[in-house]
Amino acid sequence: MASKKSKLKVISLGGLQEIGKNMTVLEFNQDIIIIDAGLGFPEDEMLGVDLVIPDVSYLVKNADKVRGIVLTHGHEDHIGGLPYVLKELNVPVFGTLLTMGLLENKLKEHGMMDTTIRHVVVPGESVKLGQFKVEFIHTNHSIADSVALAITTPVGVVIHTGDFKIDYTPIDGGVIDLNRFARLGDEGVLLLMSDSTNAQRSGFTMSEKSVGKEFERIFDDSWDNRIMVATFSSNIHRIQQIINCADARGRKVAIIGRSMLNAVKTSSELGYLNVPKNILIDISEIRNYPENKLVIITTGSQGESMSALSRIARGEHKHVSVKPSDKIIISASSIPGNEKNIFNIINELSKKGAKVIYEGMADIHVSGHAKAEELKLMLSITKPKYFMPVHGEYMHLNAHKELAMSLGIPKENIFIMEIGDVLEIGKNDAKVNGTVPSGQVLVDGLGVGDVGNIVLRDRRHLSQDGLIVVVVTIDKEGGYILSGPDIISRGFVYVRESEELMSEARQVVEDALMEHELSGYGGWSAIKNIIRDSLKNYIWQKTKRSPMILPIIMDA
Amino acid sequence: MASKKSKLKVISLGGLQEIGKNMTVLEFNQDIIIIDAGLGFPEDEMLGVDLVIPDVSYLVKNADKVRGIVLTHGHEDHIGGLPYVLKELNVPVFGTLLTMGLLENKLKEHGMMDTTIRHVVVPGESVKLGQFKVEFIHTNHSIADSVALAITTPVGVVIHTGDFKIDYTPIDGGVIDLNRFARLGDEGVLLLMSDSTNAQRSGFTMSEKSVGKEFERIFDDSWDNRIMVATFSSNIHRIQQIINCADARGRKVAIIGRSMLNAVKTSSELGYLNVPKNILIDISEIRNYPENKLVIITTGSQGESMSALSRIARGEHKHVSVKPSDKIIISASSIPGNEKNIFNIINELSKKGAKVIYEGMADIHVSGHAKAEELKLMLSITKPKYFMPVHGEYMHLNAHKELAMSLGIPKENIFIMEIGDVLEIGKNDAKVNGTVPSGQVLVDGLGVGDVGNIVLRDRRHLSQDGLIVVVVTIDKEGGYILSGPDIISRGFVYVRESEELMSEARQVVEDALMEHELSGYGGWSAIKNIIRDSLKNYIWQKTKRSPMILPIIMDA
Repeated sequence: MASKKSKLKVISLGGLQEIGKNMTVLEFNQDIIIIDAGLGFPEDEMLGVDLVIPDVSYLVKNADKVRGIVLTHGHEDHIGGLPYVLKELNVPVFGTLLTMGLLENKLKEHGMMDTTIRHVVVPGESVKLGQFKVEFIHTNHSIADSVALAITTPVGVVIHTGDFKIDYTPIDGGVIDLNRFARLGDEGVLLLMSDSTNAQRSGFTMSEKSVGKEFERIFDDSWDNRIMVATFSSNIHRIQQIINCADARGRKVAIIGRSMLNAVKTSSELGYLNVPKNILIDISEIRNYPENKLVIITTGSQGESMSALSRIARGEHKHVSVKPSDKIIISASSIPGNEKNIFNIINELSKKGAKVIYEGMADIHVSGHAKAEELKLMLSITKPKYFMPVHGEYMHLNAHKELAMSLGIPKENIFIMEIGDVLEIGKNDAKVNGTVPSGQVLVDGLGVGDVGNIVLRDRRHLSQDGLIVVVVTIDKEGGYILSGPDIISRGFVYVRESEELMSEARQVVEDALMEHELSGYGGWSAIKNIIRDSLKNYIWQKTKRSPMILPIIMDA
Repeated sequence: MASKKSKLKVISLGGLQEIGKNMTVLEFNQDIIIIDAGLGFPEDEMLGVDLVIPDVSYLVKNADKVRGIVLTHGHEDHIGGLPYVLKELNVPVFGTLLTMGLLENKLKEHGMMDTTIRHVVVPGESVKLGQFKVEFIHTNHSIADSVALAITTPVGVVIHTGDFKIDYTPIDGGVIDLNRFARLGDEGVLLLMSDSTNAQRSGFTMSEKSVGKEFERIFDDSWDNRIMVATFSSNIHRIQQIINCADARGRKVAIIGRSMLNAVKTSSELGYLNVPKNILIDISEIRNYPENKLVIITTGSQGESMSALSRIARGEHKHVSVKPSDKIIISASSIPGNEKNIFNIINELSKKGAKVIYEGMADIHVSGHAKAEELKLMLSITKPKYFMPVHGEYMHLNAHKELAMSLGIPKENIFIMEIGDVLEIGKNDAKVNGTVPSGQVLVDGLGVGDVGNIVLRDRRHLSQDGLIVVVVTIDKEGGYILSGPDIISRGFVYVRESEELMSEARQVVEDALMEHELSGYGGWSAIKNIIRDSLKNYIWQKTKRSPMILPIIMDA
């Protein structure tokens, strides 16, 4: 049992005041459990970075305490960081069947299937992890088999909703288990952590089923067209509805895009996707069917440049070329930052004559996240003593805080935290007390964490104005120039049309070197500075650009 | 007079199938006139580029024909390219008073006031340019003093709407001159070129005055707050409404941001902005007034990182620090691509406790562009024989084409063109016939056009994985290594933590060089290839990255 003084520590290592790389830590004395281990996508200024994962050095330092990782659902921002985390911290992983199926695809890619201890759980089940009892509660979201967590700790019950919405008519029939949340609320909830993504939006998120109705209408309207639908590969229920629409109209379905093929395979094998016999055809077979007996389901709804839809739009797809008789539905909303890429695809598809239906033109997408009224419902039935809005930027967390305050939760019981902050909770008190290391670890190729501020600063510098390398060979003893200075540039100017500039630049460096005594220096750094300063001034004055200048001195 | 065979040529050099750098050319025998000369903003992949202007080589080649440049309004995408164009093609410029005032600010920056022939015109006036008669027609838009053009040519009348909307209650009282368009329509219009920006949006754009009503409501609601409003500096009527609201409530107004200060100065000097006496104060004086007697008008509504609002959000502004009692209105909609930057600012301002009102929360912005119903009105009253949708990406142009078809304009009389395409029009025929050179000229610092595909490709390469320079000194005759290979990297890995990788890389290059006979080569290029290939393979295998590899061989 906990001593009277023992507190529960709640620490976010990702997903607070940012979108993505969700990861939450609960710690009580000698026990730690981890909720999710997501990845984030690089910001524009993180040049060349593939993905971002949470800094888990606090967990590695306390590895002996960590009892396991529990997963809420199979989206990248909740499971995508797991292979990297497990390499540093090999602890058991718990998740529902589909979540685990999607995770296993990743573990296979990383060659980690044999070394990872995996436990499949069903909603309603509880697992004991040290002093924590973790119960999995069925929810609704834009991926099947999502769960919230009710975690019984020595000081009280903590609920983490994961990502959720309330869908009274979900595709799989399983409405979020509101009654369980209500019972927990009646019994007493110490802390609620709840999804803030849509806290700024008023009203109630529409049911996934409403998208199906719109698909029916568009499919009927397009009885003479080939139909393509681009959507998120993880949205199994969306895919189910497209398949249902196709089936009802005697259309065959071809799936393209690697992640879409993976998702359909995994989810149909595990029973989450019900695919009628003989409806699926390989994309190479589409030529054997009339256009109006075909539906193509593809990735690329965010305009990703390597996606199947992008390749189709550019006319580079092996099997699919766009025709004026094509009707193309982009069943998604644009994630901020992706608008231009999506517009480019729409332009290209339209230019080829296809009719493109996208966001704003029809009700072909619903969010997977609860809006204000749903969030109020969750707050109302769980009646938490303390509340921590999670998953969102500051504006989302703050909007969620305001919702909670409007329901009477005292301001001082609501905690907008930053990653690394430690919230210490007892039975009757809670306060932010100290921090642990946290942050972003950048993954670039095989490198995890070897790209940091200095590397990014150099990449940004190089990206803006390119580079000038100055090489000069200097006689070590005599201190005179043996050869050079030679000037090489990349990404600076088109050299063939700037010969005069480059030869003047060479002269400027040579003159600067001549003015100085080159021997007798302790090292070459002073000479490097002479080169750098003289060239920098000359180039700025002539071009108003500041390329990186890299002086290289060879001695002989 | 024109021979029977002479055709009018209509050529777009910018603004078709793209947003920005609007420029249209009309040519008839020995006469050319140019409509607008705008700039565009660089795409994400145009690293380091400051702005984009149209390729005007066709005009330079035909410089003796060019009779003048006529301007529709003072937005950057219509006048921003002018200083660059005028340097290559010094011809008279015609525009309304405010347009010319804003242009003159630019000409001063470029030191071109003395060399540029400027003619101020008033709406209703016509000017004769060779065989063209150009009439300026008052319109409504998000900047004052906007005009459309009715151009009488030997084959008929061409109307170019410029950017426009229909505002029955504009701030300056001057409703778009619909009657003039109607009379032109009655007399016969050969070709209409009309703004397509909002062609995809149904309905009618709200009056600018509706924004004023919302400001009144928010100002009344915020009787105890300091109020900041961020908007576009060129939206003089928006600024007028903010000043009116402030004045009615006894608040002083401080203006910040260089372009906002310029716009307020120019437009009030020219009589387009009516500033009550003593209402303006310098930003350094705000400390002398109670918070609720202040309004600050600022730039930065698009999240521009160097704008006043960004600096305020980061806590870096000299005179303004955000307080919890601030109410901040972002009176703009986000231009695609800017969402993330705007959200960052909202997060930062909210974190400091300010209440931020932005897009979607209140009706604090209206578009300056006509929506579907207004476009139909324009098409209906001008009754053009031929129609060319302008200003927009393909999807916008195509939506506008569909509107025109729905009004009965035959498909074959509607021309969706690309920049450089030549539309040849006679009294009774029109067809696209040939192309002229066109494209994007990139401006980077003082360089105009010296950054092209090769430079951008190198910048992109450098930005993704950085650079490795390999320097080796080789004895010219003996063919043996005198010093090196030395390896220097930038933007690749954090060198201090990758010493082993870098020393192995050095060894790999040395081994590769040893395997080859270094003397007897015609040049060094074969040796450079040895270095590049060996290092590239090694680095890819170890890191899955592809830095630029720059081998430098010195001979001694």
